[in-house]
Amino acid sequence: MSSQQDKKDKDFSISPLGGQGVITIVGVGLISGSFAIALKEKGFAKHVIGVSRTEASAKKALELGIIDEALPLEEAVKKSDFIYVAIPVDATIPVMQQIMDLITDQQIVADAGSTKYVLCEALKDHPMRKRFVATHPMWGTEYSGPEAAVRDAFIGRACVICEKEKTDAAAVATVENIYRELGMNLIYMDAESHDRHAAYVSHISHITSFALANTVLEKEKEEDAIFELAGGGFESTVRLAKSSPAMWAPIFMQNRENVLDVLNEHIAQLRKFKACLEKENYEYLNELMNNANKIKRILK
Amino acid sequence: MSSQQDKKDKDFSISPLGGQGVITIVGVGLISGSFAIALKEKGFAKHVIGVSRTEASAKKALELGIIDEALPLEEAVKKSDFIYVAIPVDATIPVMQQIMDLITDQQIVADAGSTKYVLCEALKDHPMRKRFVATHPMWGTEYSGPEAAVRDAFIGRACVICEKEKTDAAAVATVENIYRELGMNLIYMDAESHDRHAAYVSHISHITSFALANTVLEKEKEEDAIFELAGGGFESTVRLAKSSPAMWAPIFMQNRENVLDVLNEHIAQLRKFKACLEKENYEYLNELMNNANKIKRILK
Repeated sequence: MSSQQDKKDKDFSISPLGGQGVITIVGVGLISGSFAIALKEKGFAKHVIGVSRTEASAKKALELGIIDEALPLEEAVKKSDFIYVAIPVDATIPVMQQIMDLITDQQIVADAGSTKYVLCEALKDHPMRKRFVATHPMWGTEYSGPEAAVRDAFIGRACVICEKEKTDAAAVATVENIYRELGMNLIYMDAESHDRHAAYVSHISHITSFALANTVLEKEKEEDAIFELAGGGFESTVRLAKSSPAMWAPIFMQNRENVLDVLNEHIAQLRKFKACLEKENYEYLNELMNNANKIKRILK
Repeated sequence: MSSQQDKKDKDFSISPLGGQGVITIVGVGLISGSFAIALKEKGFAKHVIGVSRTEASAKKALELGIIDEALPLEEAVKKSDFIYVAIPVDATIPVMQQIMDLITDQQIVADAGSTKYVLCEALKDHPMRKRFVATHPMWGTEYSGPEAAVRDAFIGRACVICEKEKTDAAAVATVENIYRELGMNLIYMDAESHDRHAAYVSHISHITSFALANTVLEKEKEEDAIFELAGGGFESTVRLAKSSPAMWAPIFMQNRENVLDVLNEHIAQLRKFKACLEKENYEYLNELMNNANKIKRILK
């Protein structure tokens, strides 16, 4: 039939997203902004709608050309083939429920949150669950807001997709295709495993940075000269302390059991160094550091 | 007199070091190698002699063109206008004493160690103390050995000079001139203050990285998938764990009281995060992170 033929032509000629190439990013910040830039460059998106809690961010994102249009959530969702949610993980749950109440089974929604279990649990019985793809592209910087969005983000990093089996195969394939085109390596796991691993390779690094910043700032009260000295090693271990509390506090809270587990282990490891120094146990100190050197085989 | 005139001509025409521009680097690694490369480029050094504990390092440094000649310590010192010592801080003390027993008051010796108090104490009564400049150029990477040496190191970083008043003014001026030409910002302090500050801006970062690596490696036994996920934030906080134990264990030991002080503070700060998570005290968690964000005013 001619209308079917029209539809087919449109699908294939206009966007690999399977519609007119209209996407909505919910949240116009570091992740969603970088994602939108990449989707336009790769030809997935013809038109990007931004949904933002604050007018200032929406305006900035328009100015920067990251979005073509700012709209309220409901209106944006209705016009979109693909909706990408990248906001603090506590806000994600109600917003995602709202979105999934609005979509048809021609639309796809994905999130980019750093925790997956609580969200997947909250959405598991939603009638549109099969149109939702739970993802965590493991890229970021310590900066936030639309100004923080960059070109060529995501390249070479891992992207976790959770509970693939609960999503329509075609919807998963579309999202996989997007992330692959962005240069990411796809990894599949259940939401619980994701959260446990994320605590180790991401969340604890943020906690140690925040705590290290506080350690040094505590001492700054006495010692101003410290900061003339702050060099590369310091900057490297502390830079994540610049990260947004609005983004990270909900992550730590949603993943608190895993984060507590790794934090306890980390404090125990630090206490070993402390004991070595207290007891002047040079041999064990060397052993601890030689063991730490094994990280070379993991880091490139 | 003609011999005086000769000497004067030689001084000014050949090297700003005040002699024939012969330098010895003791240790042929990351710091000394990068230093030698820069000194040649800037015209301070015409001929670089390397003194190395191992033949392999000396050979590598020769191959890489970092040194022109490898010699035993005594021979090297006798031929040099300037001797630069960059070896583990525990080895520095006996080696420096040996060097200072050999030099005349036309020669200058400086070290690049990360601790200053123990060394300055050990040398304070040496008859040649006035020819020694105690320095700590605060630059480095997690790599070691001559292969790790790079061009354009040191630029924009701080260099601490300790106990300037105990060194001949002309010797200090020569070394200041070198570091300034390398692009470093000079900071002056007594050795005790240096060590206290270094604990905060450098040594603790290394301990947290070593401990964080051990934390994650401890868990790796169970979870192989972790390492496919390790991304930018993790790499940034853990990269210092690749540092050389031979270099760092003596630093921690020589500076153990200061390092213990900051390590105790750091564990206390981590325990605050732990308590927040245990008690689900979201408000205090946010407060801790907002406070940590103040580090923005220190990091560029």
